[in-house]
Amino acid sequence: MKSDLPKVLHSLGGRSLVERVLDSCSLLDLERQIVIVGYQGEKVKQALSQRERLEFVEQVEQLGTGHAVQQLIPSLQGYTGDLLVLNGDAPLLRPETLQELVAVHQAKQNAATLLTANLPNPQGYGRVFCQGDNLVSHIIEDRDCTAAQKQNRRVNGGIYCFNWQKLLEVLPQLSTNNDQQEYYLTEVVDYLNPVMAVDAEDYREINGINDRQQLSAAYDVLQMRIKNDWMKAGVTMINPDSITIDESVELQLDVIIEPQTHLRGQTAIAAGSRIGPGSLIEDSQIGSNVTVLYSVVSNSQVADNNTIGPYSHLRGKVQLGESCRIGNFVEIKKTTVGANTNVAHLAYLGNATLGERVNIGAGTITANYDGKHKHPTKVGDRTKTGANSVLVAPVTLGENVTVAAGSTVNKDVEDNALVIARSRQKEIPNWGVQSG
Amino acid sequence: MKSDLPKVLHSLGGRSLVERVLDSCSLLDLERQIVIVGYQGEKVKQALSQRERLEFVEQVEQLGTGHAVQQLIPSLQGYTGDLLVLNGDAPLLRPETLQELVAVHQAKQNAATLLTANLPNPQGYGRVFCQGDNLVSHIIEDRDCTAAQKQNRRVNGGIYCFNWQKLLEVLPQLSTNNDQQEYYLTEVVDYLNPVMAVDAEDYREINGINDRQQLSAAYDVLQMRIKNDWMKAGVTMINPDSITIDESVELQLDVIIEPQTHLRGQTAIAAGSRIGPGSLIEDSQIGSNVTVLYSVVSNSQVADNNTIGPYSHLRGKVQLGESCRIGNFVEIKKTTVGANTNVAHLAYLGNATLGERVNIGAGTITANYDGKHKHPTKVGDRTKTGANSVLVAPVTLGENVTVAAGSTVNKDVEDNALVIARSRQKEIPNWGVQSG
Amino acid sequence: MKSDLPKVLHSLGGRSLVERVLDSCSLLDLERQIVIVGYQGEKVKQALSQRERLEFVEQVEQLGTGHAVQQLIPSLQGYTGDLLVLNGDAPLLRPETLQELVAVHQAKQNAATLLTANLPNPQGYGRVFCQGDNLVSHIIEDRDCTAAQKQNRRVNGGIYCFNWQKLLEVLPQLSTNNDQQEYYLTEVVDYLNPVMAVDAEDYREINGINDRQQLSAAYDVLQMRIKNDWMKAGVTMINPDSITIDESVELQLDVIIEPQTHLRGQTAIAAGSRIGPGSLIEDSQIGSNVTVLYSVVSNSQVADNNTIGPYSHLRGKVQLGESCRIGNFVEIKKTTVGANTNVAHLAYLGNATLGERVNIGAGTITANYDGKHKHPTKVGDRTKTGANSVLVAPVTLGENVTVAAGSTVNKDVEDNALVIARSRQKEIPNWGVQSG
Repeated sequence: MKSDLPKVLHSLGGRSLVERVLDSCSLLDLERQIVIVGYQGEKVKQALSQRERLEFVEQVEQLGTGHAVQQLIPSLQGYTGDLLVLNGDAPLLRPETLQELVAVHQAKQNAATLLTANLPNPQGYGRVFCQGDNLVSHIIEDRDCTAAQKQNRRVNGGIYCFNWQKLLEVLPQLSTNNDQQEYYLTEVVDYLNPVMAVDAEDYREINGINDRQQLSAAYDVLQMRIKNDWMKAGVTMINPDSITIDESVELQLDVIIEPQTHLRGQTAIAAGSRIGPGSLIEDSQIGSNVTVLYSVVSNSQVADNNTIGPYSHLRGKVQLGESCRIGNFVEIKKTTVGANTNVAHLAYLGNATLGERVNIGAGTITANYDGKHKHPTKVGDRTKTGANSVLVAPVTLGENVTVAAGSTVNKDVEDNALVIARSRQKEIPNWGVQSG
Repeated sequence: MKSDLPKVLHSLGGRSLVERVLDSCSLLDLERQIVIVGYQGEKVKQALSQRERLEFVEQVEQLGTGHAVQQLIPSLQGYTGDLLVLNGDAPLLRPETLQELVAVHQAKQNAATLLTANLPNPQGYGRVFCQGDNLVSHIIEDRDCTAAQKQNRRVNGGIYCFNWQKLLEVLPQLSTNNDQQEYYLTEVVDYLNPVMAVDAEDYREINGINDRQQLSAAYDVLQMRIKNDWMKAGVTMINPDSITIDESVELQLDVIIEPQTHLRGQTAIAAGSRIGPGSLIEDSQIGSNVTVLYSVVSNSQVADNNTIGPYSHLRGKVQLGESCRIGNFVEIKKTTVGANTNVAHLAYLGNATLGERVNIGAGTITANYDGKHKHPTKVGDRTKTGANSVLVAPVTLGENVTVAAGSTVNKDVEDNALVIARSRQKEIPNWGVQSG
Repeated sequence: MKSDLPKVLHSLGGRSLVERVLDSCSLLDLERQIVIVGYQGEKVKQALSQRERLEFVEQVEQLGTGHAVQQLIPSLQGYTGDLLVLNGDAPLLRPETLQELVAVHQAKQNAATLLTANLPNPQGYGRVFCQGDNLVSHIIEDRDCTAAQKQNRRVNGGIYCFNWQKLLEVLPQLSTNNDQQEYYLTEVVDYLNPVMAVDAEDYREINGINDRQQLSAAYDVLQMRIKNDWMKAGVTMINPDSITIDESVELQLDVIIEPQTHLRGQTAIAAGSRIGPGSLIEDSQIGSNVTVLYSVVSNSQVADNNTIGPYSHLRGKVQLGESCRIGNFVEIKKTTVGANTNVAHLAYLGNATLGERVNIGAGTITANYDGKHKHPTKVGDRTKTGANSVLVAPVTLGENVTVAAGSTVNKDVEDNALVIARSRQKEIPNWGVQSG
């Protein structure tokens, strides 16, 4: 990967490769989960430290896949169940595929069951040859295939389910009689019986990631799955190639996603909302019939019928009531906004609580930070702030207050009051004539 | 479609599917236009209520395409002309194709003429078999085709021109002897003579829309047509896959469209302008040699040689004179701006009229809204507003006025005056030492 | 091209076609460079006037490629070396390919060596037939090929290296016995011996540009080369199809480029930085571990660990120290910013010098322009400006100064002082009751 980061820690759509591999077991009832770590293993352990029930086994020297599995022997003393072997760099496996692999393995009481795929272009891959449908007779490396054998497009995906006790018997027989002088796990197929093959539905599931182009291509595969699923479920996408959606996102009927829009993390969007073009929604819940245009919304909750953007930024636990208008060049942070309130132009609101039907004038700013602490601002229902006014927190404006344009307010204001803090206008005639 | 909206009302590039189908007849001289509506027919009628000369016929039960056409019998009593039958979900037909279909039908005095297409992958479609070039002998459904017949890639597009009187004779003979137990219009081909086939130039013209993926794919087909046409006409596009352009847009020679740019509605862009990246232009006329960078322009007119953006928003009938500079984080609404005027930073102008060579300082805001009404602001030629000044409307600033920075102006100002409305600066020494 | 611009002056990724053709010789040691100009030749000369060592030869009438080369005869009197002939509209040639062409030509002492390519679809191109591997026996135009000859996918790329003296002998023999009645350079292949063919590694290198679709397609080819090279070198790209990167850009390990990001000109980005989505970086140097989100940065230098955006605009020689936060709706122009300084919201800084640990409040504006000149603003370390404050340049704020919110500062301020320039807040009760 040419990276300071171990390969399996590279991110693919918000999760690392190894996390994705672990998550591909989500439909299986696993007794134990063991991660074999080698090069930069400490970083991998560290990155996975938040996940429960993981065990780590160290492979000090990297002597091949067979050697890696040999490292499990001490940990699996007396274990009599099955062993599923996955690769940390193959993140496209679908849980349903592994479920099928294990189900066939157990139903047929195989010694080993391996995942295969029919590649459009199998060049370079070991070919799997079967008797009957799926009983593996042998695997031949690409370089050893005859021209006729090369026509076989069924390849070994490198993912196996083993009867551990049977595997244990043959693991010591692995040799290093090969180009790389490594212990290959593939070799055990020759010693076990019966060995069965199960095809992945989508051949791309077995793709390993060895460079950034493959990482990018894998992301495209994931995105195609996600976007096609949502389109089938009733979401309209315009120019879907330019849109990215994390798997964790939930979309309702008749949502419309415009081009160049990115939906990430724990985001949900309710029916009939139109998002984009050019918007990023992260970890936010958006109500129905909301429009978001050229804006960034993160960690926020937006109720129904809101209009956001262009060029708004909501972040840090904003709670937006229904039917508000959040407009151009407006940033709102850690603020609760009541229904039918407008913050239409060039405003910054931080650590504030706004009532209903408030009108925040253009250029209004909550001065919430004194250089050391953040302070709260409260604005009552139906209050209007004038253009370029400043609310110096902590401060409370009552209901139906009017703040005159250009005023800096640093004391609380009673309901219904007009508050004004500015100088009278003076005119010096002929200035332009003198100075110009 | 998994939608609350009837399928034919889904939008494809700014127009609904059914509107597009109706518009595909634009080159034909139609006597009458009849829309057969069924499921959610009221919504369809409603959506089409603005279109002239449309008649609606109801199909209460949905018993197939032949049954749908049978519903026309009462409306077409005594009619002796031709009947063109289209599908509401096939929006990619080009007007030229229908013109050709009808022309052949009438020239050859066919009983029926049907639109065919040669699909790269015809699987699932009824195949059309002809004697000689185009005289249809029979149509065979995919499931009834022999292996040899399946090699025929010419399929029935489901679009027909009929001699109505001849069709009327055979319509009652339709049966429901098929899988779906529906009355299929295809069956009449067996009873009429002569029946001729006309190939669509582009096989994708016959594509029907049955889900959101097909809707998205249809949009791509339309966009490819539009963008290729403009490239042929002398428009440069960078990364055209990321650009969308409505059919209603007009572009002149040597316009350059940068990536992630969207041109919608009644938009026209004159020679040599560069739009994008990341811009949305809606229903706006842009002059020549204009640059628009990361900005939204809607319902506005922009004269030649303007520089807009990044991050500008013009909306609501802005009229921009020549050679202005509209800059960063500037919103202009319903405002006329004279030539050579700059609004370069963090400003909001609403309901204003600006003269020529005006300089609007950073942070200048027109306070145009008193909570109930919008009021006008007038700014004369060569006037300069200071940073963070507020113009409280209604207010008029004369020519060559200077507004001091930080001033709130709420009374009219004479030509050449300096207007100032702010407090004198006071300094409290050692504050930082005490407080820090 | 349907353009006011001569074809060879159209821009492809920041350089014109003819500049790219000239640059494709970068690995060759050229004695002279001669550009044959015809239609709109003055514009071409003008556009290339900054390049050194170019000579121009005029072709008054456009009578074909052979005729063009004939125009060189007066300029090359007595020249005994080789002549490399390129086409001004073929900008995808790699320098390595021309190096190989010339190396073969000289090693084999050929009379002529021509560049060939194996096209997937050679229709329309003249086919090159060879004895043995690469010794050209004849070239047959597509229309003159037999069905068998049409199977040959090796075509003439129209790029030649000649022994000038040998070419000079045969140039007068060119005829106009062809469809176009033009003098074709291809014809000399019949008169010279030996003539050899060299294949371009990538067949797309010989692509000529004749319309905007081909211009766009050529850009895609270039972009694919550039992006694949950076991915191989350890750069992660998310949705690379939506990203554009000029060849002049330099990227370090583990840079992450998010969708819809454009890197142009002399831009360099250091290790671990994340750029995008939706960002444009031009002629700027970005340090390591910087994030840039929905922002435009041009002609600027950004040190390590900065956070920029969403919606920032840095331009005109900004120098940003380490670990700053430049936030929402902030424009910074021609300004030096010390380390650990925040400019987080709705600010405009121009011609300013900021110290370290400065906090620029939301809505702070440097009034740097008096309508005629730009003036400097200096802000000392640890100084804080309040919300909506204006700094009227020229002005200097000392260290650890506090500017009260809403203040307009037009006189210098001492270290540690609090500066305040605003009116006391007045409250008029029951205003809302009366007016509302």
